[in-house]
Amino acid sequence: MFLVGIAGGSGSGKTTFAKKIVQRVQSPVVAHFSQDSYYLPSPPQKLQINGESNFDHPDAFDWPLLRSHLEKLKRGESVEMPIYDYKISRRSDKTQKVGPCKALLMEGIFTLWDEEIRNLFDIRVYLHVEADIRFIRRLHRDVRERGRSLDGIIRQYYDTVRPMHHEFLEPTKQYADIVVGEETDIAAEVISARVKELAL
Amino acid sequence: MFLVGIAGGSGSGKTTFAKKIVQRVQSPVVAHFSQDSYYLPSPPQKLQINGESNFDHPDAFDWPLLRSHLEKLKRGESVEMPIYDYKISRRSDKTQKVGPCKALLMEGIFTLWDEEIRNLFDIRVYLHVEADIRFIRRLHRDVRERGRSLDGIIRQYYDTVRPMHHEFLEPTKQYADIVVGEETDIAAEVISARVKELAL
Repeated sequence: MFLVGIAGGSGSGKTTFAKKIVQRVQSPVVAHFSQDSYYLPSPPQKLQINGESNFDHPDAFDWPLLRSHLEKLKRGESVEMPIYDYKISRRSDKTQKVGPCKALLMEGIFTLWDEEIRNLFDIRVYLHVEADIRFIRRLHRDVRERGRSLDGIIRQYYDTVRPMHHEFLEPTKQYADIVVGEETDIAAEVISARVKELAL
Repeated sequence: MFLVGIAGGSGSGKTTFAKKIVQRVQSPVVAHFSQDSYYLPSPPQKLQINGESNFDHPDAFDWPLLRSHLEKLKRGESVEMPIYDYKISRRSDKTQKVGPCKALLMEGIFTLWDEEIRNLFDIRVYLHVEADIRFIRRLHRDVRERGRSLDGIIRQYYDTVRPMHHEFLEPTKQYADIVVGEETDIAAEVISARVKELAL
């Protein structure tokens, strides 16, 4: 089983990039999922900043569950992946069966955070996009898709997104085999060629 | 014809990286060459710093010849590539036939400098290695292989290599489709998979 990890800041285009690769490989045996499915059942109180949950800290994730699921998938087994309810910021009671598959892409801000998980990946990718562009993309998404207020978005950005990015995410760039910028088509082609070569 | 450009500072491991890809592709229709073959017939006097030639400035290269050769190779033709005599820092009278080939890797500090040439590449790679590591590699090479003095190496580094790197080379990183660090095995595998997929 061929495992690709895609890290990058909020708004760096991780999901789009993962989808590009899956589309190019064009095979039902290739799956992708977001690390966000593995948030803890509820956001830890101790991480709160100004009374707001902090979803950009590594401790907000359920690492033991994620590790065990990735190990199972790597062995060619299937897992019951949790489904996170973003509306109430809680893990739902529902799960989704993922795998067995021959290749799997996982994307998320802390994809390259945990050493055990890093060692499971066959390719480690970091999407490097300048902070202003990432903020603007986030702003668009939060205003359009989530109907949030400008003040709320900016407050969350200063309180958690930005400091957590510098403290925890950016240092994981050093573990990437490949760093990709804003233009991702060529990188997606190159990685999908390798996935096809090994997994199909 | 599939063309890969590999840029990176002096000591970033460009030649090693190009060789890794060629070895993995394992085909006689894949060639690689160094941009250093396209230095001007003699180093321009106007670029001299403290009486020493400056080989780290874009104007030290014969861009019209390089452009025309890459265009010919891209069309599936062969070229008579100049052979540079490093001992006397002059272009020799000899040439070497290169091509026709199905894939070609070009490596050099200014691989991503010229817009016309950039547009010919199917994959643009930049090797990002920290400056101290690059300096130490250069030091090793110049002492061991070229028998140069420590003072001379350091003077050249401060006079030309370092300032030219910051002024001219680093800004070309923005044009890379893929940035690779010190560990290059995975990136070489990924790129060679794409070369095999398209060129063989």
